[in-house]
Amino acid sequence: MAFHLLERERERGLKLAAVLEQAIQRIGHCSQCRNFSEESLCSLCASSSRDRQVLCVVESPTDLAAIEQATGYRGQYFVLMGRLSPLDGLGPEELGLAQLTERLGVGEIEELIIATNPTVEGEATAHYLAQLARAGGVRPTRLAHGVPLGGELEYVDRGTLAHAFGSRQLLD
Amino acid sequence: MAFHLLERERERGLKLAAVLEQAIQRIGHCSQCRNFSEESLCSLCASSSRDRQVLCVVESPTDLAAIEQATGYRGQYFVLMGRLSPLDGLGPEELGLAQLTERLGVGEIEELIIATNPTVEGEATAHYLAQLARAGGVRPTRLAHGVPLGGELEYVDRGTLAHAFGSRQLLD
Repeated sequence: MAFHLLERERERGLKLAAVLEQAIQRIGHCSQCRNFSEESLCSLCASSSRDRQVLCVVESPTDLAAIEQATGYRGQYFVLMGRLSPLDGLGPEELGLAQLTERLGVGEIEELIIATNPTVEGEATAHYLAQLARAGGVRPTRLAHGVPLGGELEYVDRGTLAHAFGSRQLLD
Repeated sequence: MAFHLLERERERGLKLAAVLEQAIQRIGHCSQCRNFSEESLCSLCASSSRDRQVLCVVESPTDLAAIEQATGYRGQYFVLMGRLSPLDGLGPEELGLAQLTERLGVGEIEELIIATNPTVEGEATAHYLAQLARAGGVRPTRLAHGVPLGGELEYVDRGTLAHAFGSRQLLD
């Protein structure tokens, strides 16, 4: 990209540099959900039409975007900006869990939807978050794991198949 | 493969032909579960150590193999050898559903685990099988669907994410 800009699009390169500088100077974090935001309170947190009794915890802003696009979720979010990963120096402090604990303690939230990734570190984080939720008297729930829609059992990895089999559900 | 055998391995080609002929002549279907078998009753159906109160319905022998490898399931199977697909001429008759209904009616089976693929046709088949189970007084269950283990929410398709979100479960 750098070579293309230098060879053919020097003006656009300057524009890109200016836009990038502006973005980095202006975009901070929402004081409530920690997502990227130009304002101190992001549009989702400021919205009066979102349900304040449900809070969905995600690892990153891209996960938030995926959930917003795919589901009809109308509650609020909390963005960890990472996952518990002691080897990378990411502990409860870096993920803003003190802020989350405080918010859970207010008593407004009834359900904490834990939408961390089903990876090893994401599961550990989910376990930790569930404990925080229970301590705050909030019901912790977790996204369903199993065979993806449109998938074929034959090509699904063993771990997922074993999990899907073990957590089979009654059809009604 | 054909060219390789003709060029270099004519003897092995003859052996392969003989083995293939033998397999096609000898391997039929198990009279109970419809899986491929050399005997009229396959080893899984004949085994006295398998639980006869649970029956798992799969689309194909490869799905059966995947479940046997990945899970600790100790019940029995029923292999449809396809899925309901009227356009391909596959109806209840071709899938041996009369035989399944008969088996459900005996009263020995308590749970029917429906492990058809989560594709459109697999879901339609699952719906039909659940009705059969209920009519026979058997509890129908379905493998869990959702985000595969080790997956990242960001890269999961929208349908699966929406389903995983909608069928989130209480953590306890």
